[in-house]
Amino acid sequence: MGERIYLYDTTLRDGAQTQGVDFSVADKTAIARDLDLLGIDYVEGGWPGANPTDDAFFADPPQLRNATFTAFGMTRRPGRSAANDPGLAGLVGAKCDAVCMVGKTWDFHVDVALNIPRSENLELISDSIGLIRERKGEALFDAEHFFDGYKANPDYAVDCLMAAFQAGARWIVLCDTNGGSLPDEVERIVRAVAERIPGTNLGIHTHNDTENAVANSLAAVRAGARMIQGTLNGLGERCGNANLVSLIPTLMLKMGYETGITADGLRRLTQVSRGLDERLNRAPDRHKPYVGESAFAHKGGLHVSAVEKDPTSYEHVDPASVGNRRTIVVSDQAGRSNLLARFREIGIEIDARDERIADLVDLVKRREYDGYAYDGAEASFELLARRALGEVPDFFRLQSFRVIDERRWNARDELITLSEATIKLDVGSQSLMTVAEGNGPVNALDIALRKALVPAYPELEGLRLVDYKVRILTPNDGTKAVTRVMIESIDGRGDRWTTVGVSANVIDASYNALHDSITYRLYRASIAAARDGR
Amino acid sequence: MGERIYLYDTTLRDGAQTQGVDFSVADKTAIARDLDLLGIDYVEGGWPGANPTDDAFFADPPQLRNATFTAFGMTRRPGRSAANDPGLAGLVGAKCDAVCMVGKTWDFHVDVALNIPRSENLELISDSIGLIRERKGEALFDAEHFFDGYKANPDYAVDCLMAAFQAGARWIVLCDTNGGSLPDEVERIVRAVAERIPGTNLGIHTHNDTENAVANSLAAVRAGARMIQGTLNGLGERCGNANLVSLIPTLMLKMGYETGITADGLRRLTQVSRGLDERLNRAPDRHKPYVGESAFAHKGGLHVSAVEKDPTSYEHVDPASVGNRRTIVVSDQAGRSNLLARFREIGIEIDARDERIADLVDLVKRREYDGYAYDGAEASFELLARRALGEVPDFFRLQSFRVIDERRWNARDELITLSEATIKLDVGSQSLMTVAEGNGPVNALDIALRKALVPAYPELEGLRLVDYKVRILTPNDGTKAVTRVMIESIDGRGDRWTTVGVSANVIDASYNALHDSITYRLYRASIAAARDGR
Repeated sequence: MGERIYLYDTTLRDGAQTQGVDFSVADKTAIARDLDLLGIDYVEGGWPGANPTDDAFFADPPQLRNATFTAFGMTRRPGRSAANDPGLAGLVGAKCDAVCMVGKTWDFHVDVALNIPRSENLELISDSIGLIRERKGEALFDAEHFFDGYKANPDYAVDCLMAAFQAGARWIVLCDTNGGSLPDEVERIVRAVAERIPGTNLGIHTHNDTENAVANSLAAVRAGARMIQGTLNGLGERCGNANLVSLIPTLMLKMGYETGITADGLRRLTQVSRGLDERLNRAPDRHKPYVGESAFAHKGGLHVSAVEKDPTSYEHVDPASVGNRRTIVVSDQAGRSNLLARFREIGIEIDARDERIADLVDLVKRREYDGYAYDGAEASFELLARRALGEVPDFFRLQSFRVIDERRWNARDELITLSEATIKLDVGSQSLMTVAEGNGPVNALDIALRKALVPAYPELEGLRLVDYKVRILTPNDGTKAVTRVMIESIDGRGDRWTTVGVSANVIDASYNALHDSITYRLYRASIAAARDGR
Repeated sequence: MGERIYLYDTTLRDGAQTQGVDFSVADKTAIARDLDLLGIDYVEGGWPGANPTDDAFFADPPQLRNATFTAFGMTRRPGRSAANDPGLAGLVGAKCDAVCMVGKTWDFHVDVALNIPRSENLELISDSIGLIRERKGEALFDAEHFFDGYKANPDYAVDCLMAAFQAGARWIVLCDTNGGSLPDEVERIVRAVAERIPGTNLGIHTHNDTENAVANSLAAVRAGARMIQGTLNGLGERCGNANLVSLIPTLMLKMGYETGITADGLRRLTQVSRGLDERLNRAPDRHKPYVGESAFAHKGGLHVSAVEKDPTSYEHVDPASVGNRRTIVVSDQAGRSNLLARFREIGIEIDARDERIADLVDLVKRREYDGYAYDGAEASFELLARRALGEVPDFFRLQSFRVIDERRWNARDELITLSEATIKLDVGSQSLMTVAEGNGPVNALDIALRKALVPAYPELEGLRLVDYKVRILTPNDGTKAVTRVMIESIDGRGDRWTTVGVSANVIDASYNALHDSITYRLYRASIAAARDGR
């Protein structure tokens, strides 16, 4: 068993500073429980007294199993005692197990921002830590702007830490508040501090302004720090805080450290990370280290057959250890072995020597050259493959459609736009014609199409489009430009799939993607029906 | 002047492996030119022979001013001479200034993937580098899986490098192909290699699988590497490659290295980074180090006045040095000064106490809340502001339009789609009605509109759309989704401008963007005419 690293999560405080993030009390409660279940040591809930959300959260804090529920606050103001400071009183009264106090350590900020004698700042730190230590049991000290402070005046910066240490702070956390320090500086400075204050528990708090927040945390650990403050998914103001989701597996799987997280807990990491994105209504970043959807994606022909032979020589860790999985991607670079691997994934069984595979590789390459992208449109890829293998019937045949968009002034002198689609198609021997209005040409076409098809195929009832993306592929050649449309659909059971259409005409491209979307749903239903013996 | 670091961009090759990224030949050409203008030393265009896009790109490569245009390829196959290897023949025939050859250096991969004697792999490397060196002038060697190889068998891994070095490779680039190495390992191993092969030019190529790609590159530089291979915005398969956009300012502003980029070039960095996202139809990540919209964001309150007093103590670098800017979020006062700053940028002169400014702040906020984005659409922003100030006349007034898209089978039994637009509008007291066909509804509308306007406004003659982008803004709510359209236009003199339109109906949104585009051109012409006293 390796040495123990303590994890301190500040998603609910520093992470809440992220532009565009706005946690409710319910969000905070749910996230705190997730962090606790994961095995995080300290969960910082917020700053009681700073805003109504944090007041409400601390008034009725979540019951945590293992984590130390922590409040954040500032050292007392100049000119009054710690016991009479309203901010500190709020912290003393907060329902929490520990308080992390931030204080100044950069002489320049003491001079200019606080505008008090430097010795008085030492008293602010010492008094505040002392009070919290006495009244709440555990105090931590966040040394604000420490690295800038140390670079400017190492003796004074260390004096500030010493004040907190001597007043009984359990952890002294060195903060790179502006995020501008580089790993070699962090390592050197943490090492120097560890030598100057022997016996102290050092922590590190970094920001990602140079894309080094993770590396700076690791550099501090190498130099002796034993606590890391960070956030889930690297939330935080500006460029974010150190991303605990990336740090945790590196510490545990690569560096051999022990944390409060078990191997089982580690397998929940992907879920915890994506769950936070869901809560924030953001698409998870597929490129996130360890937990992203693409983190263990393989692309490129030769490479893929080798991965299947021996994954450990192409994957830096086992994807399952963090709850993620391997994916094989189809692309321009697709070779035979890529396609075969991809087929196995979607359940197409085909002999590796089947001569249709070479044709299919050619077809995929040709289509991608024309502007199709199957990377993000797995349903269209599956249809392409199954059609080539003769497995997909024509569920319907389009005769024609017409879409009319009309913009005019209405009776209230407002400009309004109406879209109407008429469609003629055959289902088996039956000819159908429908018309529908929509809030745009594609929406109208989609409604008319389903109006025609639902009587024959009731499984299309709950289908709807949830995303629609358009891209012009040769923007430097306006007239010859090709348009690519990606459509994401969802059905009544919550299944989602994405299809792609390409054409010089955006309506045409949209129809192609729509056609694939509906065909995919019908094909899936027919397979399910066949399997159930219906 | 500090020591020189060489920058090697592989956005167009390794970056093209990103899931969801699919460059066209036109994209590659434009990006290569951007990289060249920025001052990147090597631009890797792709892998000639690997796919039709790269073949087409290398058949007609962009003319670069300074950068070495480089092809990527693999060492020869076992069992044939370098001169008779079809892959190498393709590289020799490719129109490029240098070739980067990737070869194996991990004994395990030589044994298992290549399945040849280890000594034969040394010949593969040596022969291939030798041939390229002789026929193309410059060869670089990408040592695949080098760090894993070195950890497994340092002597063999170094032998592979030595083979490339002795065959005349100008650069030996150590690749952390699986992305699993940590900064301290990278530093230690690069240092060891530098000692074992004195006199070689070492490069580093890292991946972001542990969120350490940038730190690993910096660690290698500290150990003596003088070339960094990376991509714009950290594009790349899985979790991406080392992000040159983060590395460049750190190297130049913090570590004192010289690169091929001037201080002026560095000020283009934000624009280059966001331009790539625009091209990929992605929202730029606002939290990106150095170039993100939030990278220098400050919240209101005390902090802000402190920032204004002395920005250097709250900002790790000057935002202007990388072409970014400070933003103050939340406070109304901030909105006001932001707006005033933007006005100055586009040449609107307005008194800071003008009461119309408050209304305009409200208007911009309301519009942005509705989904308008003025960051990428400066022409629409300028029109919004100038309209609010009463400076923009109504050059024409729309009465109505109708767009018909019709898809049907033609006489040759092909499905074809025709788009036709009819438009009624007034120019002054004159009512006009025109009709036109286009290769899509927006194209038809654009042609009909200009057909009606050109007689009155001949300056619209050469105007055309060069880019058209559509994004759905609330993809999780299909029915209430709002569509945002961005249109980039160009006129006969080569001037470009971008406008934005938002509506529930995509045709409506497109018309709004089109209307702004034409109005902007007419407004500019009227200003020029007034200035010339016409």
